[in-house]
Amino acid sequence: MLSSHNARLASARRLTSRRDRREAGRFLVEGAQAVREAVRAEAVLEVFATADAIVRNADLLSGLDVAEISPKDAAGLSETVTPQGLVAVCRAIDVSLGQAFGRSPRLAVLLVEANDPGNAGAIVRTADAAGAQAVVFAGGVDVYNGKAVRASAGSLFHLDLVLDAALDDVLAAAGGAGLTTLATTSGTGARDLDQLADDGTLAAPTLWLFGNEAHGLPDAVLTAADATARVPIHGRAESLNLAAAAAVCLYASARAHR
Amino acid sequence: MLSSHNARLASARRLTSRRDRREAGRFLVEGAQAVREAVRAEAVLEVFATADAIVRNADLLSGLDVAEISPKDAAGLSETVTPQGLVAVCRAIDVSLGQAFGRSPRLAVLLVEANDPGNAGAIVRTADAAGAQAVVFAGGVDVYNGKAVRASAGSLFHLDLVLDAALDDVLAAAGGAGLTTLATTSGTGARDLDQLADDGTLAAPTLWLFGNEAHGLPDAVLTAADATARVPIHGRAESLNLAAAAAVCLYASARAHR
Repeated sequence: MLSSHNARLASARRLTSRRDRREAGRFLVEGAQAVREAVRAEAVLEVFATADAIVRNADLLSGLDVAEISPKDAAGLSETVTPQGLVAVCRAIDVSLGQAFGRSPRLAVLLVEANDPGNAGAIVRTADAAGAQAVVFAGGVDVYNGKAVRASAGSLFHLDLVLDAALDDVLAAAGGAGLTTLATTSGTGARDLDQLADDGTLAAPTLWLFGNEAHGLPDAVLTAADATARVPIHGRAESLNLAAAAAVCLYASARAHR
Repeated sequence: MLSSHNARLASARRLTSRRDRREAGRFLVEGAQAVREAVRAEAVLEVFATADAIVRNADLLSGLDVAEISPKDAAGLSETVTPQGLVAVCRAIDVSLGQAFGRSPRLAVLLVEANDPGNAGAIVRTADAAGAQAVVFAGGVDVYNGKAVRASAGSLFHLDLVLDAALDDVLAAAGGAGLTTLATTSGTGARDLDQLADDGTLAAPTLWLFGNEAHGLPDAVLTAADATARVPIHGRAESLNLAAAAAVCLYASARAHR
């Protein structure tokens, strides 16, 4: 069993910090399901696991570089309330904007200044489920944050991730890739999602733009997008939460694409 | 300013426990937006607020029974990371199953053993936004939990809530109220949401059944429902998270109803 002071373990522990993740080009993935997806994506560099977890996940771990650690050290690598005793160090898997849009996605997402890691991860998962090919992040939370990785339930390995994108670059590249840009807002000037489905707009290859949980998208983005869209509110709620709005929009596109 | 040992404050503090909420028939609502909805619903019994919050929310609080408390005591009433210094004690607002279904809802939700308070609150918010008239809880989390109340963003005051419902009663009452019961599952035997939209099933008054985050709905419920439904997965995600699945299903109904 590795000592708590082991240098590799100490390096892994530093990956709970965003700056250290970015410097190292590495991030942590926790739990059997997510590690399985990381293995499939050939992203795993090394694995830390408790004795229990090594026994429980023998099949999954065969052929990997696995170091045994104490349950306490496993908790130190975890950002969850109930650590699973199994953490993989993965190489960063994000690609450039050019690579992502060069693959001619028919459905993609741009998240602008989203601040909640659970939302970011849930949106990656929903985007994957809805058949999107890329999720682009401009500012906001780091999708390699442990809570975001966990909320993505492995989906971050299934599509192209682009990090630290500049807004102007994304909008220009979307035009070049033939993507219609739809900026979500609760503003009254926006077109209703049902209208966009009925008039055929959603049938086009689409980049959906979602903003910050509290402030939405900047005005400049609303102006620059091809159209603004809002999820209709039929009851008395002021709005949907970000992840729910993204689910409704992405599935409206998925339906229109089929 | 009330002492930390004040009896009313101590009673309010006990409402952070589910059992005490149920015994008292009261629950806590935090923050200006939610308290405003509670006032509109005539559910507020008394308010505890810091000196700052009393000044900030003077309009909202006029005519209410407000007691000033310290920031520390406000944090003790809060289940959020950043307490807002404003907490209302509200009377329980749930209604009986007979009352809720007696109003002939066209769209309603049954949550069976949902365990995450954030999910429960988010689904209440989404149900409100999609125009649902009722959300019924059978087992699982308490929607009067502080995190659930917060995630509902005031929507729990906008529709009929039914708590502690027995599954058999709900299914029988749904039949009596003319509601088609659609049980969500990721099972392969289920009908695809797009098919249910295309064949007109979703146009009927509907009770959507959603299960536990990890285990889904019990088999007996899947069998007893009028139909089983699954959200189509177009990518490589195994499933959607509960709140996202609910958003997609409820908005598919809302669109079919219009």
